[in-house]
Amino acid sequence: MDAVRVCWLEEGLVSETEARVSALDRGFLYGDGLFETLRTYGGRPFLLAEHWARLRTSAEFLGIEVPAVEPETLVTRLVEANRLPNAAVRITLTRGPLPKGPRPGTPATPTLFAQARPLPSDLDQRTAQGIDACRLPWPLRARGLPLQGHKTLAYLPSVVALGAVPEGAEPLLETTEGHVSEGATSNVFWVRVGRLFTPHTDAGCLPGVARRLVLSLAEELGVSAEPGLYPTADLAAADEAFVTSSVVEALPLVRLDGEPIGAGAPGPVTRRLHAAYREAVRRATGSP
Amino acid sequence: MDAVRVCWLEEGLVSETEARVSALDRGFLYGDGLFETLRTYGGRPFLLAEHWARLRTSAEFLGIEVPAVEPETLVTRLVEANRLPNAAVRITLTRGPLPKGPRPGTPATPTLFAQARPLPSDLDQRTAQGIDACRLPWPLRARGLPLQGHKTLAYLPSVVALGAVPEGAEPLLETTEGHVSEGATSNVFWVRVGRLFTPHTDAGCLPGVARRLVLSLAEELGVSAEPGLYPTADLAAADEAFVTSSVVEALPLVRLDGEPIGAGAPGPVTRRLHAAYREAVRRATGSP
Repeated sequence: MDAVRVCWLEEGLVSETEARVSALDRGFLYGDGLFETLRTYGGRPFLLAEHWARLRTSAEFLGIEVPAVEPETLVTRLVEANRLPNAAVRITLTRGPLPKGPRPGTPATPTLFAQARPLPSDLDQRTAQGIDACRLPWPLRARGLPLQGHKTLAYLPSVVALGAVPEGAEPLLETTEGHVSEGATSNVFWVRVGRLFTPHTDAGCLPGVARRLVLSLAEELGVSAEPGLYPTADLAAADEAFVTSSVVEALPLVRLDGEPIGAGAPGPVTRRLHAAYREAVRRATGSP
Repeated sequence: MDAVRVCWLEEGLVSETEARVSALDRGFLYGDGLFETLRTYGGRPFLLAEHWARLRTSAEFLGIEVPAVEPETLVTRLVEANRLPNAAVRITLTRGPLPKGPRPGTPATPTLFAQARPLPSDLDQRTAQGIDACRLPWPLRARGLPLQGHKTLAYLPSVVALGAVPEGAEPLLETTEGHVSEGATSNVFWVRVGRLFTPHTDAGCLPGVARRLVLSLAEELGVSAEPGLYPTADLAAADEAFVTSSVVEALPLVRLDGEPIGAGAPGPVTRRLHAAYREAVRRATGSP
């Protein structure tokens, strides 16, 4: 049994079981909103400024007003109230309720909703052993659709992808042209002969906050990183591979559709990058 | 001032101002749901069986259970309670609330929500005079993405499209390859030298219920219809054009980006098809 959790709705904390939004909320009716998921370490959020900046940029593109809340206060109070110093925090912002059709013209009062969740209990084990990646029977991304670059509530492709693979595996979203784009809830990287590869945002992936950190850490470590348009076969032929997100940090992929990637175990470049990621966490949060 | 409206939520009628859903509803958090919009004439729904069948097919694809409600009862009670015999009715079905992440595996209790709205007060005038179509600065559809064939809550492309054009104009969604796909809330047709053209569903358009009716009416009238992949330039060079939806029926397009389509006025094939549509409505509903 989970304890009753507390979430942030509009301007303060409420019990999750009581957190209700108008059925006219455009987030509910049209997927008209955005979200960010980030992690706290010892009660302190990591890369919150970067997540909030991405939210603001996308909100400006969509014409959604960002409430004048102090995001650090929101996140800190949320994880304290839930006694979850090490949490995954999701912040949702929608255009809010409007009585009329899909046109976004009329100003609405945006809805802000945030939740804290414990980290997956098996995350350390998964990070140590690596996980499976799976292809899907259909493409869920395409080149050249600018909306794909925003983390919107129109998240159904990832839902469908996760429903199509065994629990615990990360589905790989491909473009209609057969390029690997991203994981359902992550960005994808792989290593071949010491070089690091990852899909370019042109392949329809999200410009992940953890992805950007890993790219900059790779640069500091002298690992040349090459964003591009790559067929999924390149990932299958890699020496090692991993996915990144603010929740999983850098999580090794050790099999693709049941076949080993490289040696079928977490690789040395993945380990070095994850260690550097953890060091960046320590510098920023003092934890763990 | 609008009167207080009544909507259907879960198993019965409630005031819209009191209609609230859990903030954990997957429709709100992930766009994980579907909707249908249809019209009633003199209190009787038109093509409800077709809309409900599309909803069921998509719900099966997504693994969402369809509640055992009688859709005709729902719609009839809803428009009666609102004293809106001639209404646009939207039925929304989501996977329902779940406490955990985006994976759809755990069974949830689906959320059913339906609203009735008056028809746009200027619809007759717009139908008589025709409306403007507008291109957009970005593509919002792509070939070969099967999720585009379902009417899901991930409706943000249409929201963004409507926000980018003057009120009253219908934005044209194009594929990344420059094919015309559909309107933001409609399917698109045009006529050239007596032949009828419309985007194939491969162009990423929704298989509209009104679209299918118009295609079958065209066949009855001996107008040859050719679904295909067409550049938007073909529409610009047409003799006449129109959009279809269950709300607007067949609504003439008379300008594209300010330039007249054909004579810049509703065309004769559009008129014949709209008259046939109205005749189908009369046969089915006895109205108007």
